[in-house]
Amino acid sequence: MASLTNLFEDIPPSSPEELFQALITTNTFKLERILSFGQASPDGFWYDQPLAEWVVLLKGSATLQIEGESQIRYLSPGDILYLPAHQRHRVESTSSTEPTVWLALHYKS
Amino acid sequence: MASLTNLFEDIPPSSPEELFQALITTNTFKLERILSFGQASPDGFWYDQPLAEWVVLLKGSATLQIEGESQIRYLSPGDILYLPAHQRHRVESTSSTEPTVWLALHYKS
Repeated sequence: MASLTNLFEDIPPSSPEELFQALITTNTFKLERILSFGQASPDGFWYDQPLAEWVVLLKGSATLQIEGESQIRYLSPGDILYLPAHQRHRVESTSSTEPTVWLALHYKS
Repeated sequence: MASLTNLFEDIPPSSPEELFQALITTNTFKLERILSFGQASPDGFWYDQPLAEWVVLLKGSATLQIEGESQIRYLSPGDILYLPAHQRHRVESTSSTEPTVWLALHYKS
């Protein structure tokens, strides 16, 4: 697959699955584009990742639950989240009316 | 300085200098937001960086010269550049009508 030349290119209007595209992978980090099309984490599922994650939502919208927080977070374009390694979280929803574009940096902190 | 919670917050309408804000710094990479307000590289100046750089322009616009290329590159929102270590380049212009927002990842490749 050729490298992306624009973060907002090659976005299908819909997809039954989220789409993950690694942009840079090294020994210590991975930068990836994530596309969501209304998907959410399955009931009862929590991400529990061995790497820290810095993630920005660039288009669309989403709601996230961070374990231990009483409020759901609503994310709009430009919103950034820092997720320490093993910070459990789940995606409650992503926009059902347009693709949601995320840029995520997973790294050894 | 507190961490940014949105990539598009804390952007002044203008500034006499470009503004660089480190978002994450580790031993192997630095993620930073760069804000430009019409600045360009000084005449005859070329960036020649020891680290590789992945950079995306998110708002505004810019023109770049990559050494060895006959054409200036015009960058619009979403446009990505991969600059290998020591790939000489210069910023010919950035938008004079709105701030230009860049997200740059400098890393050991």
